[in-house]
Amino acid sequence: MNHPKRTAFFISDRTGITVEKLGHSMLSQFDGIEFQLITLPFVDSVEKAREAVIRINTAAMNDAKRPIVFSTLILPAVHRIIEQSDALILDLFKSFIVPLENELGILSSHAVGRSHETGTRYSERMDAVNYALNHDDGGITRDLGKAEIILVGVSRSGKSPTSLYLALQFGILAANYPLVAEDFENHALPNALKPLIPKLYGLTIQAERLAQIRAERMPNSRYASIENCQKEIKQAEEMMRNAGIPMLDVSAISVEEIATTLLHLTGLKR
Amino acid sequence: MNHPKRTAFFISDRTGITVEKLGHSMLSQFDGIEFQLITLPFVDSVEKAREAVIRINTAAMNDAKRPIVFSTLILPAVHRIIEQSDALILDLFKSFIVPLENELGILSSHAVGRSHETGTRYSERMDAVNYALNHDDGGITRDLGKAEIILVGVSRSGKSPTSLYLALQFGILAANYPLVAEDFENHALPNALKPLIPKLYGLTIQAERLAQIRAERMPNSRYASIENCQKEIKQAEEMMRNAGIPMLDVSAISVEEIATTLLHLTGLKR
Repeated sequence: MNHPKRTAFFISDRTGITVEKLGHSMLSQFDGIEFQLITLPFVDSVEKAREAVIRINTAAMNDAKRPIVFSTLILPAVHRIIEQSDALILDLFKSFIVPLENELGILSSHAVGRSHETGTRYSERMDAVNYALNHDDGGITRDLGKAEIILVGVSRSGKSPTSLYLALQFGILAANYPLVAEDFENHALPNALKPLIPKLYGLTIQAERLAQIRAERMPNSRYASIENCQKEIKQAEEMMRNAGIPMLDVSAISVEEIATTLLHLTGLKR
Repeated sequence: MNHPKRTAFFISDRTGITVEKLGHSMLSQFDGIEFQLITLPFVDSVEKAREAVIRINTAAMNDAKRPIVFSTLILPAVHRIIEQSDALILDLFKSFIVPLENELGILSSHAVGRSHETGTRYSERMDAVNYALNHDDGGITRDLGKAEIILVGVSRSGKSPTSLYLALQFGILAANYPLVAEDFENHALPNALKPLIPKLYGLTIQAERLAQIRAERMPNSRYASIENCQKEIKQAEEMMRNAGIPMLDVSAISVEEIATTLLHLTGLKR
């Protein structure tokens, strides 16, 4: 079956990140339709709302199908203008804020851009990012004991992006430390890690997937060869198993999923 | 007015990140109510759904008020169990997937955890994270020309977390480079940056805010003193203005907002 292209808009009076993620996740439920995705952030005035309507209606004409609009607009004046466009409007606020008002017995603030995050929480997250940067890839070993979690594994198993994501998203003090040839030869964890075993979590990966990731960086290298990947993974898994370090196989999951799964497995709090 | 504490649950059959963000943003519309927030990710079986119902009903008894449940459950069998709990259920999928099915003329896949992100897109994001790590804080200057954006500014103006967020969230090759005393004495940009002026974007900040951020790190230091912050910011702004580098004031906005605003201002694509 041949479906025509459709345009989807994500409209917000703030950054649009929330509505974009939610919209993506809902559109991904519909196979076989090609969506053109357009995010319109900071639509916070009547003028910008009118510009948005022009873009929506132009897409409607070009596609000969009305666009899908996901919106998190809070300002009623802005929302009323968008509603008049030639689109299916899926309004996150109307669907949820009204029932919440009824349940909680108070009116919502209808303010633009409020967030529960306090200044303290925000500076915790930024401190965590700096910590993750300083303790990336075995960087500074001073203060390593302050880590809430230390990811270990072979090169390119996803340790760095996962640490940064844990820091940025959840404010968790996450370090990461590579396991390298020298450690395997010594049949021992790096010295800096030995007193910190309860904080270690291993990332492991299928050799085929690792070889593919490494080959994108260094094609045709020994580093990326399947034989070398198999050997390193086998040695790393053996070392982690002997030290009683739990392991997560990250071959088929994204950094976001690795991070959330680790929180779930370790009980670390967001 | 004294409102009782309420419990809110964010329930997902995947990581729960989307439903959590959306739920936070909606609850932040209700001032004066203290919410206890509980995320239940990976609720992907009938057994886990039953455990979730027990937790919800326990909260309902303890609070003497029914909890609010935000859900992105796709599996009908799991959803039906959660619906029987003693809570206000705000179901993101029912509110949006059904209208989308009608509009698009096909049934949704009702699959767990589909995502539009392709393998290529994902490895672009991971490459961007590695790039941002290597080019953090003026790190490696080789390959600096590959950057799509290079953030400049004084120490602790938010360059590092913003670069990492641009990389992790949007797959953008983002570098950052500090402006330091030596540059101000020379009245000239660092040599590595001179051929790359069109890629530079300045982050600037109010002196009071910078002093506060720096004091959290190094209280009572010259580095964190208001006089030193004022001086550095003045010199950095002058240098950026003379070089024709655009500037964004980040004093009152979060890293997520800085990143999205930069995309908006520069036209860089997500």
